[in-house]
Amino acid sequence: MGESGWIWYPGDLELYYGMQQNFSRVERGYGWPAFWKSEGFRNRVAFRRGYALDHETEFRVYSKAVGFVLVGDRKYPFGQTISCPAGEVSIAIHAGRIEAFPSVYIEGDVVRSDAGWMAEDYAQPPVPAGRSRYFTRPEQDPARWDYSERSCLPVNTERVNGGTLYEFETELTAVLEVRCEEARLSGLTVYCGESREEALDLEHCYYSWRPDPETGRTPRCAVRFAFIPGEAVSLTAVHQYVDIPVRARFACGDPLLQQIWAVAEHTFRLCSGIFFIDGVKRDKWIWSGDAYQSLFVNRYLMADPDIDQRTLLALRGNDPMTGHINTIIDYSLLWILGVREHVEAYGDRRFLTQIYPKVQSLMSFCEEQLDERGFLIARPGDWTFIDWADLDKEGPFGAEQMLLAACWEALAWMSEALALDGTAFRRRKEELVSQINACFWDEEQGAYVDSFISGRRHVSRQTNIFALRFGVADEAQRKKIMERVLENEDISPITTPYFEFFELDVLAEAGQLDQVMEKIRSYWGGMLDRGAVTFWEEFDPDVTGPEQYGMYGDKFGKSLCHAWAASPIYLLGKYFIGLRQTDSGFVLSPRLEYFSELDCTLPIGGGDGFIRINWDGKTRNVATNRSGGVLRINGQEYPLFPNRQWISC
Amino acid sequence: MGESGWIWYPGDLELYYGMQQNFSRVERGYGWPAFWKSEGFRNRVAFRRGYALDHETEFRVYSKAVGFVLVGDRKYPFGQTISCPAGEVSIAIHAGRIEAFPSVYIEGDVVRSDAGWMAEDYAQPPVPAGRSRYFTRPEQDPARWDYSERSCLPVNTERVNGGTLYEFETELTAVLEVRCEEARLSGLTVYCGESREEALDLEHCYYSWRPDPETGRTPRCAVRFAFIPGEAVSLTAVHQYVDIPVRARFACGDPLLQQIWAVAEHTFRLCSGIFFIDGVKRDKWIWSGDAYQSLFVNRYLMADPDIDQRTLLALRGNDPMTGHINTIIDYSLLWILGVREHVEAYGDRRFLTQIYPKVQSLMSFCEEQLDERGFLIARPGDWTFIDWADLDKEGPFGAEQMLLAACWEALAWMSEALALDGTAFRRRKEELVSQINACFWDEEQGAYVDSFISGRRHVSRQTNIFALRFGVADEAQRKKIMERVLENEDISPITTPYFEFFELDVLAEAGQLDQVMEKIRSYWGGMLDRGAVTFWEEFDPDVTGPEQYGMYGDKFGKSLCHAWAASPIYLLGKYFIGLRQTDSGFVLSPRLEYFSELDCTLPIGGGDGFIRINWDGKTRNVATNRSGGVLRINGQEYPLFPNRQWISC
Repeated sequence: MGESGWIWYPGDLELYYGMQQNFSRVERGYGWPAFWKSEGFRNRVAFRRGYALDHETEFRVYSKAVGFVLVGDRKYPFGQTISCPAGEVSIAIHAGRIEAFPSVYIEGDVVRSDAGWMAEDYAQPPVPAGRSRYFTRPEQDPARWDYSERSCLPVNTERVNGGTLYEFETELTAVLEVRCEEARLSGLTVYCGESREEALDLEHCYYSWRPDPETGRTPRCAVRFAFIPGEAVSLTAVHQYVDIPVRARFACGDPLLQQIWAVAEHTFRLCSGIFFIDGVKRDKWIWSGDAYQSLFVNRYLMADPDIDQRTLLALRGNDPMTGHINTIIDYSLLWILGVREHVEAYGDRRFLTQIYPKVQSLMSFCEEQLDERGFLIARPGDWTFIDWADLDKEGPFGAEQMLLAACWEALAWMSEALALDGTAFRRRKEELVSQINACFWDEEQGAYVDSFISGRRHVSRQTNIFALRFGVADEAQRKKIMERVLENEDISPITTPYFEFFELDVLAEAGQLDQVMEKIRSYWGGMLDRGAVTFWEEFDPDVTGPEQYGMYGDKFGKSLCHAWAASPIYLLGKYFIGLRQTDSGFVLSPRLEYFSELDCTLPIGGGDGFIRINWDGKTRNVATNRSGGVLRINGQEYPLFPNRQWISC
Repeated sequence: MGESGWIWYPGDLELYYGMQQNFSRVERGYGWPAFWKSEGFRNRVAFRRGYALDHETEFRVYSKAVGFVLVGDRKYPFGQTISCPAGEVSIAIHAGRIEAFPSVYIEGDVVRSDAGWMAEDYAQPPVPAGRSRYFTRPEQDPARWDYSERSCLPVNTERVNGGTLYEFETELTAVLEVRCEEARLSGLTVYCGESREEALDLEHCYYSWRPDPETGRTPRCAVRFAFIPGEAVSLTAVHQYVDIPVRARFACGDPLLQQIWAVAEHTFRLCSGIFFIDGVKRDKWIWSGDAYQSLFVNRYLMADPDIDQRTLLALRGNDPMTGHINTIIDYSLLWILGVREHVEAYGDRRFLTQIYPKVQSLMSFCEEQLDERGFLIARPGDWTFIDWADLDKEGPFGAEQMLLAACWEALAWMSEALALDGTAFRRRKEELVSQINACFWDEEQGAYVDSFISGRRHVSRQTNIFALRFGVADEAQRKKIMERVLENEDISPITTPYFEFFELDVLAEAGQLDQVMEKIRSYWGGMLDRGAVTFWEEFDPDVTGPEQYGMYGDKFGKSLCHAWAASPIYLLGKYFIGLRQTDSGFVLSPRLEYFSELDCTLPIGGGDGFIRINWDGKTRNVATNRSGGVLRINGQEYPLFPNRQWISC
């Protein structure tokens, strides 16, 4: 039955830390808790299990909650050794905690908190208890996250502006530790920056801290540069992170591409903590659209299903739904698509079983805002985002309907994965696609319009990219869209890396790999030319100097470490190294013409599966430890067998 | 606009402290959090208000939450002085807090947290912010209750069983403070008891504490006796209480009656803290049925509307309802009747406006479990309590339907009080009464039966008392019930003080005052004969010695300070001193034949209103400071005028 670990009501850990995450944004001294409904971990739960004991056994329950252990009809306090005679016994653990979610740890040879405990919340039928690989020791408290730590000394110090500027090797998420005389410490301020310019701008930098006078430590924050006015002190950055092993390795003969991968990897790891967040300096929030893209990168880099689950649970919150995820309609829909992506990636039926009721209730919430054609219409207070761009959002908005169609398809798929009938959902999808084509397709323009109500017949890349990506356009329409929209310079270009992900994905899927590779090298390479050690929220090659750090009207408003900028890992992994996984197997179709040499390992599934391709320009060597693989090369298919190398010259 | 005070989302304080209260039960070392759904204060709220400022003004916001102040479109941190120029300005305060409910205090001449601020929770339309007279200073944190304190030294110490027994003057809810040498303190245990016997029983007493080694203090608990093994130490009890002034004064020529009032008053005050709780040693939970009775006592003793509100809000929790209040169907129904009682008592339309949506959703939750006749049927997991007695609960249970009829009536009344149409509710009541009379009335027995399904035709006092009290029986039926049930010794007597309240109320209402007075003197007087300093959860005159402290199979399981035992205050106040208040006025009909002399002041309404009757056996002297009063004496009515004495010999 596995090892003992802390258990709780499933989803509570995510709701609790989700709030911590979304309340952690700080800007120049004020906190900025995310502006949506945040609440909902449980305060009163019970855990139950029955045992048929062969022999007498002892156990002990640990908890920071208020409560007791009920063995048969006798109550015991937490922390006391309890003896249980042989025979059938029912054990219940009752726990209440206000400031955090209640959790318990059961230590014993037989009776212990391994898999098999059920949790109750006095509102719904019992469900399997929640657990995490990060909470396995009785001395822990699941309400305090034990970050892994690495101490980093500055790689460079510089006397400037009457103080010292400390530079670290790269960007970190760190507690800064100041050592100096006690008298000095109490009056000292540390100014942090993602850029040198930010750390030296005492007025506009995001984070400035007075270290704790006892410990000399600042709160944990994003930092690459730190400036301290006055005499130099001893400064250490204690980088704090969630240890999620990277399972991919990428080496190729091209230093630029290799550096792009490395910097994307560092960017993505910084933004992958307890949850997928947007950026480490700003917003530090869990955004569903950003997280959706992180799911894809994760699959090719760490292939960690747990962070997917934590993020999806935190985003969704509890029933009843009272507003869209992050207040954004498309982010609700992308959450549903994210659940499907996760379940497909890792074959995670257990999670699907857990989350499916919340998929249904989210969809019911959306259904309440459908018009007579089945189009999703914004309620007052809903945010129709899609992208920062000039879009015609009057009446039913095209791109939202494309997402909705994909959601009906996803519900059909999920139902069937749970051995339920998905026919009705599939029919909803087909009906919606018909309506979309009837209303939004503009044959004259060879494209979908954003709005068929406004009369403006505005064509955007965004709506058409979604039509391609989510299976709304048929073959003839796809061709027209490629030519009349994507390859048409008169149609406003994508300006955000967020939507760049979707555009490059669609282009790559359509086989435009030259164009995609060129964009990776120029756009991401362009940031490296500016000395980037992590990839940015936004990059405009035409903006240089201090202005390149501004955004949202804020001098240092741009996040220089933003998850959505890590997409080269996904694009390279899927389209150039060419790995695609399905529920039933995987195919590697490497496009070696884009590399002079390549030694790349990618994860398969959520365990320790991998596939490695090694090509020195002559010999191709492919190995995997998983069955179900196929190598597709030069139009030929070769089955791959676990632990047997495939070699060809 | 009044004084500044802390503000929060209305109801959050009650949900937060309600959990603290319901998680505070401790028995011999283990915590016993109440076994129902407990959760729901908000973690992310916003407060908003617009001002038209005549001149520039400054303000400052205090909060333990994470957040910021938005003035126009500029953000400021908490704790900073903010200057606002003359003109129109919108101010929003954003706050997030995980471990407790977010709250803010605004200090300023014009911009300040007086009445007028609206609160939002990202789920529902804005509502007026919550506030309390106990949180009015910026240095407070509304998540830490500032109890009033009074230090009490033991009135008696006794060397016994190798230690010292400390006796306090009466029962307290106190932190015990031990003073002795440091070395001694760390090994010392304090055993507490509501009785001498309990404190001396180191194995079975409920509370035993190791004082904090730094402060020498124990947690706050119910204590009258404390035993400390070994050498004597210096011991102080720091009684901690919520300061709710007593507005009634009762003096009469009869020492027994006067002592009953005094002990009932002390009992009730101990059980009236942040909320009405059942008892101070056990359960320390907020039970709706117990609280319902406390509303009536409160009206005649403290007349404090705030504790009513806090208790009603804490009991009800948030929507959606997922189970009955305290899991008990009748407690849900009594909650609705309690809301009506409160609103009638204090004319509290503001609270009714706030709570009415939750009255409606509770009633909708009940409606889902009505059968085709409109009878309320228990769901699996519902507890049909009514009383600890042999009742026939098969199928629709009679007493529940009587409560339900009263609830329909209450909804009609509340609707009309809010200027809504109550006709439909009144019709529901009439239809239900018809159905009850058709199904439960047994003409042959001259009584309502508990169940018409079981065929047992079982007649209980409980069902018939409710039929009388909640207006289901007509005049002819009332007479029969009085004779065939209440005055019939073959019908099982009431054994709990909980239902004794309802029985005595019905008897008194029917004019059986001799019987009621006799019961007050014998039952409550009987406890005094046993040395009671507070009134007990249960009293059986036939049980003496150590056994009288046992209950629920537990040697000291009986609560010796239980709110529902304070009902003599209500019975004396309403039926003997004879004060009845309605929304529109009040009537005093004193029954002076039951007193040799009387000097009694009772509160009128929720402010500082009072009525005083002073009778020395000859002269009757009545005074009040409120208009709308009538004195009814010997069948004559005399109008009372504020601040003018009415005197008659």
